[in-house]
Amino acid sequence: MDKKRNHTNKFQFVVDATDWSAHAGKLSTPHGVVETPAFVPVGTQATVKSLSPDDLENVNTQLVLANTYHLYLQPGPEAINRLGGLHQMMRWDKPLMTDSGGFQVFSLGWALEHDVGKLVSIFADDSREEVSVREYEKKGKALIKREKLCVVDDEGATFRSHLDGTLHRWTAEKSMDVQHILGADLVFALDECTSPVHDEAYTRLSMKRSHLWEERSLVRFKELNKKSEQSIYSIVQGGPFEKLRKKSAQFVAGKDFFGTGIGGALVSKSKMGEILDWIMPIVPENRPNHLLGIGDVDDVFLGVDKGIDTFDCAFPTRIARRGDLLMMPEDGGTCANHWRLHITRHEFRDDPAPICRSCHCELCQSTYSRGYINHLFWARELLAYRLATIHNLWVMNMLFTEIREGIASHSLNRVRERWMG
Amino acid sequence: MDKKRNHTNKFQFVVDATDWSAHAGKLSTPHGVVETPAFVPVGTQATVKSLSPDDLENVNTQLVLANTYHLYLQPGPEAINRLGGLHQMMRWDKPLMTDSGGFQVFSLGWALEHDVGKLVSIFADDSREEVSVREYEKKGKALIKREKLCVVDDEGATFRSHLDGTLHRWTAEKSMDVQHILGADLVFALDECTSPVHDEAYTRLSMKRSHLWEERSLVRFKELNKKSEQSIYSIVQGGPFEKLRKKSAQFVAGKDFFGTGIGGALVSKSKMGEILDWIMPIVPENRPNHLLGIGDVDDVFLGVDKGIDTFDCAFPTRIARRGDLLMMPEDGGTCANHWRLHITRHEFRDDPAPICRSCHCELCQSTYSRGYINHLFWARELLAYRLATIHNLWVMNMLFTEIREGIASHSLNRVRERWMG
Repeated sequence: MDKKRNHTNKFQFVVDATDWSAHAGKLSTPHGVVETPAFVPVGTQATVKSLSPDDLENVNTQLVLANTYHLYLQPGPEAINRLGGLHQMMRWDKPLMTDSGGFQVFSLGWALEHDVGKLVSIFADDSREEVSVREYEKKGKALIKREKLCVVDDEGATFRSHLDGTLHRWTAEKSMDVQHILGADLVFALDECTSPVHDEAYTRLSMKRSHLWEERSLVRFKELNKKSEQSIYSIVQGGPFEKLRKKSAQFVAGKDFFGTGIGGALVSKSKMGEILDWIMPIVPENRPNHLLGIGDVDDVFLGVDKGIDTFDCAFPTRIARRGDLLMMPEDGGTCANHWRLHITRHEFRDDPAPICRSCHCELCQSTYSRGYINHLFWARELLAYRLATIHNLWVMNMLFTEIREGIASHSLNRVRERWMG
Repeated sequence: MDKKRNHTNKFQFVVDATDWSAHAGKLSTPHGVVETPAFVPVGTQATVKSLSPDDLENVNTQLVLANTYHLYLQPGPEAINRLGGLHQMMRWDKPLMTDSGGFQVFSLGWALEHDVGKLVSIFADDSREEVSVREYEKKGKALIKREKLCVVDDEGATFRSHLDGTLHRWTAEKSMDVQHILGADLVFALDECTSPVHDEAYTRLSMKRSHLWEERSLVRFKELNKKSEQSIYSIVQGGPFEKLRKKSAQFVAGKDFFGTGIGGALVSKSKMGEILDWIMPIVPENRPNHLLGIGDVDDVFLGVDKGIDTFDCAFPTRIARRGDLLMMPEDGGTCANHWRLHITRHEFRDDPAPICRSCHCELCQSTYSRGYINHLFWARELLAYRLATIHNLWVMNMLFTEIREGIASHSLNRVRERWMG
């Protein structure tokens, strides 16, 4: 087992159990230990939307991801520094990770130009549907046109703030400097995320650029982190191309990163299993593996099977705010209904039943009825968003508890069957 | 003291202490006892915006007011009935009151026609200022014109739903029927609220109409409440006219109501003291007095001095959601700053100090900084609204605790001086 261990001064990753290629382990940080596999909710603006830090603890959250790009713009690193860093500012004294801003460079650049990705709520009729711009246009609804807000060169990216249009320069060094001030336990090297519309030639060019940025990130990170208060993850890119993915995995394996991040799996979801099959045999076994932006139940099982240790995703919290409640298998959650109950449906208007009988979250263990939650959503009452978010994170964390126990007892198959049917 | 006691089967109001004309007492209901004077937060749509019932308890809320008009439209009395009534639906098992819909008849009718009242967020630039339409037009901003949505006749009111434009008929009997289904402990008779623009002639006509409606309310209430699960308050109207106010006070005194409500003080705030001086010597001493829609700190002291026992007001929760935090005197709250700190001001952007050192609410007792709360408001994060609401209700309830203790120890003057300066 000694091989599967990575530790620096204050960080350590140990694999305790395996079930085929799936790991269960412990990721230790200066702010505590994360039992893996683990789900990582997204706290974009230094808060997981609608929840307090106490709420997060009550639903068994172990690790939170905050977005560096958003916090760089608002309230800015100077303010965060004066407020004692991100942990102290947001009153979260457990493990914390920040991304590099690379995905936002993609969102503001290629994603807008290529009309890919989930672009929510930028439409003229204020629809809350989560569809790609392409799908949206097919439906014939009016779309508020946006210009590309970011251009990339070999040195870095130049973008306009989505808040006030001001011009900013983003480089590997800048990302590291900002992430150092934020002070999360785990940080990411800067990469460029490509779009599925890109051909192999551009994806190769972009991957090489990402590798240069990651090397520069590592150099700056080491200069800044003499006391080892933070650890850094690489990011494997290469789009849907086998050769490139393998090359990228070899590159990050040869560099002195603490963990391995896998990017770009989001934009080619159907190929995710194949991509992981190319990468996972190459990346170092003793490093924790983080899959960026993935959090659907079926994708989680796929990722865990391939050896992923942590998953961040905004989806359980985002769908909560539009009334999609995650259901455990014993309460009717299945692959076919995407483990969701849409509480705003008319049939629940006067339903006195609880949301989910087997869930132990605050929403389900209290005597809140489906009818009342339906009412709160229709009335657009703020309480609805908080209760639904509490519920969804509780279910996600329950899923991961079952997965960890399944791996420890070599019965992950049974857990998978229970959820996937 | 026996004189100052009113009780039915399950309801009782007892005055324990007096300090000049101010009372401290206990209002007993089937769902518990309210220590008076008490502040009553408004849960318009069966939830005090952004708070859970546990939050409400944690800030020492004793009694909540829900709005019958809003709940009649959404989710509707049939749904509420099937969800077990309002207490069970909203998981609030403490005392609850509902209004009659009379104020909404005014809001949808005369208030729109006369451009009076605080009309928030109906303006073209989405301003969150709380000013009257008249003040607004003076500022030269664009106003979205609205048509009057309600017309009143002697029998009742006909209104269009502000939600979907459907036509509804509202009468004393209807209000009582709906309030009976909602099942709050304390209900109000239906009245018509006049506007300060109305002359004495119309106000007299309207007052007589209110008296007819209140008599009919009482008849229907008694038919419905054979088991005395609810108690009913009258409403004194009469605008700013001494003769009419006295006549209205005499009218309600002569009828078999449990409590006395005082309406229309909101729309002539400057005359409030005078109006109470006309009314209070006439209304029965043994009934609890409720002042509708009043909740500014200075108005509370005025009301308590005149013998008011309970006050409902949406203001502490509404201003919380725009970042106005109520301040205790020792933290800088004064008459001049309206006991408010506007947390979104730039100076708080990187302020690591707590909101209010002497407050014991969840927001202030945790290590949340002014800088973080400022950030949450600028980032429009939902957590901001909940924390600010918790804080403001805590301060309001602290004010009322001090007032009750002041009356009990005959030192209300000292409490007033502390807050009013």
